[in-house]
Amino acid sequence: MFGRLGRHLIPALALALAGQAAAQAPVPSSEPLLGFSNDRASEERALEARFDAALNAANLRQWLQRLSAHPHHVGSPWDKSNAEFMAGLFRSWGYQTQIEQFKVLFPTPKVRLLEMEAPIRFKASLAEPALPEDSTSGQAAEQLPLYNAYSIDGDVTGELVYVNFGVPKDYEELQRRGIDVKGKIVIARYYGSWRGIKPKVAAEHGAIGCIIYSDPHEDGYFQGDVYPKGGYRGDQSGQRGSVADMPLYSGDPLTPGIGATDDARRLDVKSAPTITKIPVLPISYGDALPLLKALGGPMAPEDWRGSLPIPYHLGAGPARVHLKLEFNWNLSPVYDVIARLPGAERPDEWIVRGNHHDGWVNGAMDPLSGMVAELEEARAVGELAKAGWKPKRTIVYAGWDGEEPGLLGSTEWAETHAAELRDHAVVYINSDSNSRGYFGAGGSHTLETFVSQVIRDVPDPEKGVSVLDRALAANVLFGPPDQQQEARDARASKTLHLEALGSGSDFTPFLQHLGIAALNIGYGGEEQYGQYHSIYDSFDHYVRFGDPKFEYGVALAKTGGRLTLRLADADVLPLTFDPFATAVGKYVEEVVKLTDTLRQEAEERNRRLDDKLFQSVDDPTQTWVAPPRLDPAPYLNFAPLQNAVAALKKSTADYSKAWAAATAGGKALPAETANRLNEVLMKSERALTRPEGLPRRSWYVHQIYAPGFYTGYGVKTLPAVREALEQRNWKEATDQIPNVAATIEAFAREVDKATAVLSAK
Amino acid sequence: MFGRLGRHLIPALALALAGQAAAQAPVPSSEPLLGFSNDRASEERALEARFDAALNAANLRQWLQRLSAHPHHVGSPWDKSNAEFMAGLFRSWGYQTQIEQFKVLFPTPKVRLLEMEAPIRFKASLAEPALPEDSTSGQAAEQLPLYNAYSIDGDVTGELVYVNFGVPKDYEELQRRGIDVKGKIVIARYYGSWRGIKPKVAAEHGAIGCIIYSDPHEDGYFQGDVYPKGGYRGDQSGQRGSVADMPLYSGDPLTPGIGATDDARRLDVKSAPTITKIPVLPISYGDALPLLKALGGPMAPEDWRGSLPIPYHLGAGPARVHLKLEFNWNLSPVYDVIARLPGAERPDEWIVRGNHHDGWVNGAMDPLSGMVAELEEARAVGELAKAGWKPKRTIVYAGWDGEEPGLLGSTEWAETHAAELRDHAVVYINSDSNSRGYFGAGGSHTLETFVSQVIRDVPDPEKGVSVLDRALAANVLFGPPDQQQEARDARASKTLHLEALGSGSDFTPFLQHLGIAALNIGYGGEEQYGQYHSIYDSFDHYVRFGDPKFEYGVALAKTGGRLTLRLADADVLPLTFDPFATAVGKYVEEVVKLTDTLRQEAEERNRRLDDKLFQSVDDPTQTWVAPPRLDPAPYLNFAPLQNAVAALKKSTADYSKAWAAATAGGKALPAETANRLNEVLMKSERALTRPEGLPRRSWYVHQIYAPGFYTGYGVKTLPAVREALEQRNWKEATDQIPNVAATIEAFAREVDKATAVLSAK
Repeated sequence: MFGRLGRHLIPALALALAGQAAAQAPVPSSEPLLGFSNDRASEERALEARFDAALNAANLRQWLQRLSAHPHHVGSPWDKSNAEFMAGLFRSWGYQTQIEQFKVLFPTPKVRLLEMEAPIRFKASLAEPALPEDSTSGQAAEQLPLYNAYSIDGDVTGELVYVNFGVPKDYEELQRRGIDVKGKIVIARYYGSWRGIKPKVAAEHGAIGCIIYSDPHEDGYFQGDVYPKGGYRGDQSGQRGSVADMPLYSGDPLTPGIGATDDARRLDVKSAPTITKIPVLPISYGDALPLLKALGGPMAPEDWRGSLPIPYHLGAGPARVHLKLEFNWNLSPVYDVIARLPGAERPDEWIVRGNHHDGWVNGAMDPLSGMVAELEEARAVGELAKAGWKPKRTIVYAGWDGEEPGLLGSTEWAETHAAELRDHAVVYINSDSNSRGYFGAGGSHTLETFVSQVIRDVPDPEKGVSVLDRALAANVLFGPPDQQQEARDARASKTLHLEALGSGSDFTPFLQHLGIAALNIGYGGEEQYGQYHSIYDSFDHYVRFGDPKFEYGVALAKTGGRLTLRLADADVLPLTFDPFATAVGKYVEEVVKLTDTLRQEAEERNRRLDDKLFQSVDDPTQTWVAPPRLDPAPYLNFAPLQNAVAALKKSTADYSKAWAAATAGGKALPAETANRLNEVLMKSERALTRPEGLPRRSWYVHQIYAPGFYTGYGVKTLPAVREALEQRNWKEATDQIPNVAATIEAFAREVDKATAVLSAK
Repeated sequence: MFGRLGRHLIPALALALAGQAAAQAPVPSSEPLLGFSNDRASEERALEARFDAALNAANLRQWLQRLSAHPHHVGSPWDKSNAEFMAGLFRSWGYQTQIEQFKVLFPTPKVRLLEMEAPIRFKASLAEPALPEDSTSGQAAEQLPLYNAYSIDGDVTGELVYVNFGVPKDYEELQRRGIDVKGKIVIARYYGSWRGIKPKVAAEHGAIGCIIYSDPHEDGYFQGDVYPKGGYRGDQSGQRGSVADMPLYSGDPLTPGIGATDDARRLDVKSAPTITKIPVLPISYGDALPLLKALGGPMAPEDWRGSLPIPYHLGAGPARVHLKLEFNWNLSPVYDVIARLPGAERPDEWIVRGNHHDGWVNGAMDPLSGMVAELEEARAVGELAKAGWKPKRTIVYAGWDGEEPGLLGSTEWAETHAAELRDHAVVYINSDSNSRGYFGAGGSHTLETFVSQVIRDVPDPEKGVSVLDRALAANVLFGPPDQQQEARDARASKTLHLEALGSGSDFTPFLQHLGIAALNIGYGGEEQYGQYHSIYDSFDHYVRFGDPKFEYGVALAKTGGRLTLRLADADVLPLTFDPFATAVGKYVEEVVKLTDTLRQEAEERNRRLDDKLFQSVDDPTQTWVAPPRLDPAPYLNFAPLQNAVAALKKSTADYSKAWAAATAGGKALPAETANRLNEVLMKSERALTRPEGLPRRSWYVHQIYAPGFYTGYGVKTLPAVREALEQRNWKEATDQIPNVAATIEAFAREVDKATAVLSAK
């Protein structure tokens, strides 16, 4: 489901460009491999060369066509058929394969009505027409129509208000213009936050309904030619998607924290906290245009205005709309495909590699482009195994169902197997949509060095250079001006910094609910996407605008395969702690700085009010309301966090020194040392969790990474402290600082344990 | 003609706002008045109170309606009629009044044809329809059609290329995408530079024709409701305007540097250097839409894309257009209205106050809103004179003709009377379009303190606070984040910093050709303009969207009147030198920093090329051309400029000290000292000129302020050095540094002379 706008709306001006294909050798063959002695590194390289040679783009294409041949959302026949097809493949490749089934709440639409009653009458079509150029777009009987899953039922009528992206600061702008959404229906544009935030914040402000539309500025002709001429969204295409309040918990709304097995104890639908409080419906920009055009009231702030050919007014009214939604509140089965290759030496250490297989409709890009890469990766790994190789550790390939409605398949599996996973899972590696372009990755910072080493060894299909080099070069060329130095430094040190993970794909239950180190990987940036969660995310679209030669699918297989093989085969798990300490140090600096910024903001705001600045400046022919006075931000005691970071940095430096001494010259650790070290390393991420979880959302236990309560997919690092500050809740921030500090210290002690193992004589 | 976009596109998000009208007393009555002893200040205040009381908004309204009743462009019957009407008013108010006539080249359209030949046929309407809601819009027979004055004749056919604003850096972006405009017709959008830059730069790059259109993003529905519902530009409205190469010289293209009198020696039209090299035509966004929609080729960079509902492609082609233009290359008369009130004590010191009276069509906002304020100001001053008051110095009120085509009336008058003006003119005070909102001013920094004092004493009609306070508050609220501290400091010190003047209105010949200290003043920011240079810039439009109560017209009269009265009556001319030294110091820091920036840019560019960054990153399915290597910027010797600034700062500090000592306690200077000081002060600005002028444009002699060679209206301070650097012409920059330094030193010596007068016993 990963919304990909952030990565793909690279400011085009920043693009500055080049001629001939480069001739550098992509894959240095003699660099050390983290976790392997020099001797073992040579073996591993030879293995990876055989793995690469086995990969075949034709398989990806063939599977993509098969899997996307029909709509395959949760509960559809093709969803089950795909799971069985993939399970058959895994079995044929030698995996111990099963389909694990859960029963989840999955609402589908019964009634969808959106009409404008005033100042003119208009009824929204809510339909995506078939296109002759897109051979699966006509499967109307099998398609889920445009809707947002986990919207509550509702029948509401009210004046319309345009709320931009519908995030909290947008309501501050409305308030300044004297506009209240209480009792009104809001219309928000997609992007600027995860979609589920929009109805949540609207309801908090008293709105009675929420419409979300795709503005051509973010998702239409402003981006490029629309489908089928180009790849971008046309005026009758819309974005389906979940609006469950996933920042509370992911997975089945009725079974928070436990697996949605047949006999699970379920919440009543009416009391499920992640279902929206108000009805919400997504529409196309074709349907949105008449509604927005009919709005009066003040002009929207300049950066709220999109690319429709109208003046963007805020309302409220005179547009008055009627929104009626009813859903079938049924339980549906989800089918997770789970394929195991048992480890020969350390079978109780699991490397889990997953991608989801359900789509909103035909879902070629999202998720099948990633799924078929994982399949090909698994096939090649299976071939290696058939030829006699055995991984040291157990490899688990997963094809998740029900990711789109809310990470259902992965969450229910993770919750069901929570105890085993906490004991056995080493790393979870996720992928999702994939296409032509640049490598990008987010994840646990203990894996940063490892990831950079892996992608140093994967050649870019278009360029010959390594995908590491290309990603680092792209960050220099496309990155924001204030991060140029950092991007150049990263390139010089050949290190791709991992993004911290928020949410939006299946890594969430593993990382943030169970404390398992996780990665999310993929390629993109050169595609024309534009059909996210529409009926046109199809095979026909993908082979024109996604990855026509499937060469970035193969690159993803090479990348995921290398990550998996090295993790499975390493003598010692390839974690490093210094990058984690650096990242956490940066996050602590950020929250300290945030407090200063909030203090300055309050001072400036209050000074402006004292100075009667607003009274002097405001246009008396318009309605303006002075913003409220802000309570001054106190000085908080960040010393516990700062001391914890200092301790962490000392611990990680000690570990690095001990590691360098113990492995000098590329020598292997004694087996017993390696074993004991692995035991410590594999569970180190667990130390970053607190059983109490985050304030008001105990399901999220990780203290470093969480999806933002008011951003959704967008990450909040050190969430317990950062979000308290953002809410100006000084008391909560004060309370949480020692908790988070204690967590960091606990992690430092795990690092110390690892150091002790290395230093023991 | 002043294009007002910069001031009026205030980021709407920055707007934060207030409730009740403020109750502060606006006009402090006991503050000292610069140039007046305490005793004389009281008299002056009493005079100004009588002046204020005489002002009547009804007059402005009545004159605006009369003067805008018909199109009144150069050569039209109503243009002459307006001049005679205004001359009659001035005479009736007691002024020695004459109409000074010049004969200037003023082309009008004979043939205008724009049609698309491929891929579909389309003929541009090039017409602005009459609107029932706008009573003068139907005067088709009297209207000049949409055209750009001083476009050359032409009949060209070629593929179309979209070039954004058409400034030099836009062509770098095109080059990176492998697009060459040679032999092509370019289409540029208005704004981003003065319009005359667009055909000039297009021709430099080999284009054969140029179309300029008004994009709704800058000038249409993106800004607000279009006329007649709101004030903004609709899809059939276009922007007339001059495209003469005014950065070379303003005024009649055939008589550079001399007055266009009947017997003046004239250039041949064919050899006039300010006429464009290629034909150029302005069109509406209604006419532009089919052309832009028909473009293929790569997508335009993201910040090139406007608000039309299309993907903005660059071309070249497949759109192929035929542009045919022929003009009547006639001489036309221009009628400057010149009204004098001779000074009683110092008649040879002239205060010149001007506004133009010609419009492109009915020109209610531009220029009559400013002209009627000047008329009312002059009427009230005339009343004072009739009642017995006499100014010490001579006051000259001017109503310029022919500003729109190229500052014709003011330039020819200034050139004709150059010797007298150099001897007698103290200050030139300009206004132009005026409307509801905030006071803004540009000008010679020797006048900065004076202007702040004047507007401290003018109450804002809407708010009661002084217009100084409101302007300073608006700069805090609307200013860019990186200038917040400066804006707050300015508010604390009650000083409105003057903008440096580029061009775009009638101050240019006075300031930049003759070295006369100048000001450009006006109100705005709360209007809905949107009809710049169209047939809808009408009385009907202005009274709905400009200044319905004419209260900001009265505010302008109060402001211009106070400036004029105080300058005319001051014992000592109210110039201060410290703000000038501060401004010049800042400009020198800027050019030093610019050199560093250019050096870093070259280093970064060349490092990227060396690192094969472009080759690694660029999408091989698109055309990308690596940017050219840049020659490294050498380290230049800025010491002469820095030493000159140090000398200037010492001189101005000495002057301030001497002034404070000589006037301590608000005492008057001895008459002889005042006389001698006035002699020095009034000509101090002349020291900032060099007779050789700027490189390649000797008409512009001022060494501190000039319109940019590649920006037009946009100012370039220290132009001889700054523009050489921007062109990476290190040799010329090196040559010009000592020249500019010597100019600054010469000015410092003038300041020293003034100090010597004050210090003489």
